[in-house]
Amino acid sequence: MQNIKLQRTTAPKEKPNEDKLGFGQIFTDHMYIMDYDEGRGWHDPRIVPYGPLSLDPSAMVFHYAQEMFEGLKAYHTGDGRVLLFRPDRNAQRAENSCKRLCIPPVPQEDFINAIKTVVSVDRDWIPTKPGTSLYIRPFIIATDNHLGVHPSLSYKFLVILSPSGAYYASGLDPVKIWIEDDYVRAVRGGIGEAKAGGNYAASLKAQEKSDAEGYAQVLWLDGVERKYIEEVGSMNIFFKIAGKVVTPKLNGSILPGVTRASCLDLCRHWGLEVEERRISVEELVSAARDGSLDECFGSGTAAVISPVGVLRFGDEVMEISGGGIGPLSQRLYDTVTGIQTGRIEDEFGWTVEVK
Amino acid sequence: MQNIKLQRTTAPKEKPNEDKLGFGQIFTDHMYIMDYDEGRGWHDPRIVPYGPLSLDPSAMVFHYAQEMFEGLKAYHTGDGRVLLFRPDRNAQRAENSCKRLCIPPVPQEDFINAIKTVVSVDRDWIPTKPGTSLYIRPFIIATDNHLGVHPSLSYKFLVILSPSGAYYASGLDPVKIWIEDDYVRAVRGGIGEAKAGGNYAASLKAQEKSDAEGYAQVLWLDGVERKYIEEVGSMNIFFKIAGKVVTPKLNGSILPGVTRASCLDLCRHWGLEVEERRISVEELVSAARDGSLDECFGSGTAAVISPVGVLRFGDEVMEISGGGIGPLSQRLYDTVTGIQTGRIEDEFGWTVEVK
Repeated sequence: MQNIKLQRTTAPKEKPNEDKLGFGQIFTDHMYIMDYDEGRGWHDPRIVPYGPLSLDPSAMVFHYAQEMFEGLKAYHTGDGRVLLFRPDRNAQRAENSCKRLCIPPVPQEDFINAIKTVVSVDRDWIPTKPGTSLYIRPFIIATDNHLGVHPSLSYKFLVILSPSGAYYASGLDPVKIWIEDDYVRAVRGGIGEAKAGGNYAASLKAQEKSDAEGYAQVLWLDGVERKYIEEVGSMNIFFKIAGKVVTPKLNGSILPGVTRASCLDLCRHWGLEVEERRISVEELVSAARDGSLDECFGSGTAAVISPVGVLRFGDEVMEISGGGIGPLSQRLYDTVTGIQTGRIEDEFGWTVEVK
Repeated sequence: MQNIKLQRTTAPKEKPNEDKLGFGQIFTDHMYIMDYDEGRGWHDPRIVPYGPLSLDPSAMVFHYAQEMFEGLKAYHTGDGRVLLFRPDRNAQRAENSCKRLCIPPVPQEDFINAIKTVVSVDRDWIPTKPGTSLYIRPFIIATDNHLGVHPSLSYKFLVILSPSGAYYASGLDPVKIWIEDDYVRAVRGGIGEAKAGGNYAASLKAQEKSDAEGYAQVLWLDGVERKYIEEVGSMNIFFKIAGKVVTPKLNGSILPGVTRASCLDLCRHWGLEVEERRISVEELVSAARDGSLDECFGSGTAAVISPVGVLRFGDEVMEISGGGIGPLSQRLYDTVTGIQTGRIEDEFGWTVEVK
């Protein structure tokens, strides 16, 4: 296990009002940082006061987007413990993202240890109100001062922490989702299954279009045939069709979500029939029309479960679960958040306590 | 025209040895920088000593790759003038890239004025040996300190300058190109036609593979059918097949190169038959086999023209122009570089003098 140096801040910031946290705008007193240089490997892991990075304007991250990130949360339990949810999954996915982007991976145990250590140092920043959490953002950026297009020989790995408000201030609330058939997020053979900055830059234009139409997020179709469902802006997507739970099969252009995997595990554990397969938009339209599209919901770290009340494809506006919250969506939300916050016993070994 | 403030360095650096410039590793004494904030627009254009940027670790460019760049060169002429080559084309393409990535575009006249002004300030840094030039890198990065996925509300636009060595130290030299059929760079509906960091991050893995096989660059196929030729890593691609000049038609996933456009203009001006159309890899293989694939070359700012001596697709190794330099490649190289450096009269109005 790496020995992480700790330099504590001498000017701790005031803790924010827990009712006005929002998402990703407030940062804690400290951050974790580690450097990579060719020949030395990853070195000098340290926790330092949160503060700016000084980078040469030619640093590769500014030009060629050689960068990856992860996202997970730490939760306060009612009995004063702090839990992480499946951080091993984030460490594994981070390694896969790094390999796809030619970034030297951080060893998985060091990745998890970095998160546990910095969360432990800023433990007082974890909000305690229901629905709040500490959002954890590990990320790696390429730092070579060189305009040639090639994998960087130096990097920085950071973990920053942001206390975050309840996604749904007053209980689950269904969202409206826009199915996009013009812009494409990713294609097989590309970087869609990596948590790479470039995928998000590519998504902004369609998000702007769906915003203008009054929709919360974009549901992407595959880049080849533009007919198969892939994922939502920041979530994976599930359907309940004629009693079966259906979600797109991971195909190389879909992000393998940790909440997605947990929902699949729970549904199977509950004895539901589950299918990971291709789902065409035509199948959805016809299921919506014949009444067999029982439910639709997104899964992701930010909202955990987002019931979808309306799906729109072209002129077709599909209302689902009467525009409300389906029973499976509610059950998954209650169970996953219950395990995350220690209210429900974790029989799967998904939670990891931060001491 | 914007009023650009100038703060000169008090510690000018030593000029590098012109025989050891390489590409993109040495930077001049100054850089141009301008800020964008919502409500104020682009403001405070200034030229300051070249130095590091200080950014919050939550700056959007590190996470969601909302970033774009351009690349062009300034050349010394034999009679002491300094020329830019078609900077209006870079300004136009920059605007298109910005729109695709939801970045507020820099007005084209300000974009060109920024380049002319900073090149003028660091005029003494433009190398003079044959084949050398001053590489100009304009780029924009998103600087909001916010982890939400949305277009940033603040940005920085910079122009940095790097004296660059001759691409071909001893005359044109044919390269070997690997046709990639596994990884994909971009797909229609994506960001392939924008000069966006994410496209380059996505390209690194295939480049690593072609390096390992001893090839200089990757030639990408389309992301949908994986059979039509798109572009090379840092160049567009041209073929001469049965006497006709053929290059892939711009389709939304191909970068519209300035050198590409100039080659097309010159070939048409010379009365050659030119086709911009889809070209399948099968067509190339059969043209190589029946002897009608006369030439192949890449076009781009870095090398201007790169003759391709070998193309490889799977087990098929196609030697072109006997592995040497075809006459059209040589003629285009001589003409474009001649116009760029003032040796050949610019009858097209492509060059712009920096006073």
